[in-house]
Amino acid sequence: MTIDTAGLEVLERQECLWLLAAAPIGRIVFTDRALPAVQPVNFALHGADIIVRTSSGSKLARATRDAVVAFEVDDYDVCARTGWSVMVVGTGRAVTDPDEVAELERLPLRPWAPGPRSHFIRVETDIITGRRIPGRYVEPDGACG
Amino acid sequence: MTIDTAGLEVLERQECLWLLAAAPIGRIVFTDRALPAVQPVNFALHGADIIVRTSSGSKLARATRDAVVAFEVDDYDVCARTGWSVMVVGTGRAVTDPDEVAELERLPLRPWAPGPRSHFIRVETDIITGRRIPGRYVEPDGACG
Repeated sequence: MTIDTAGLEVLERQECLWLLAAAPIGRIVFTDRALPAVQPVNFALHGADIIVRTSSGSKLARATRDAVVAFEVDDYDVCARTGWSVMVVGTGRAVTDPDEVAELERLPLRPWAPGPRSHFIRVETDIITGRRIPGRYVEPDGACG
Repeated sequence: MTIDTAGLEVLERQECLWLLAAAPIGRIVFTDRALPAVQPVNFALHGADIIVRTSSGSKLARATRDAVVAFEVDDYDVCARTGWSVMVVGTGRAVTDPDEVAELERLPLRPWAPGPRSHFIRVETDIITGRRIPGRYVEPDGACG
């Protein structure tokens, strides 16, 4: 087990990909009118690429097109005061090729938000890193039951 | 109830602040060596400012000092396919004034990660926005029990 300078366990690439694959929701980080922005989305993995559905005119579609973005998933346990996170950095791309769209439409990826969401964004996983707070203990004061 | 162009309910500022105050974990979005980065942290609110504890030499401390950052909290229900998110955009600041440090040390803010974390970051809430997926329904196929 590798520990980083912040005292966190460094997750290996394969574990990062497993955690990413199992996460129902991720957060896509982009730049919106020169300001940092972050938006939760449901997603699917296609190979190691992150696939998000949105509408073609959405802010997310515009802001992630040919832009370097980050994507984050995490989970935590408030009582045990522990958790993990995985971050991907990669380039966002609008999927326009009809064959590729047809392929992505077969993914188990149904938008949660209302309205038509027939536009696919693909984020290539260039960098993937993960961290976990090591160790676990239960709060002695019983605040979490 | 206001609905945005993406079909999401727009949360009012006061509701955003309530949700922010109740969230145990948020994600701070910053720039790390010219790349977008995001890191989950536990935090406290002090007025409408977000307070994070870290170590003074950490990447987070360096990258958020006098920088515009975003901060996000969310919660979601996989079975009901719904959720909400609140995003803050503001300027990060290293807290160096001893009186201010003493005041922040009285906050109920205990780091989850190991090691000394005596450095406080304060993010002023310049912009706060929130969205919720409207409506709720339970999956008919019983996939979530």
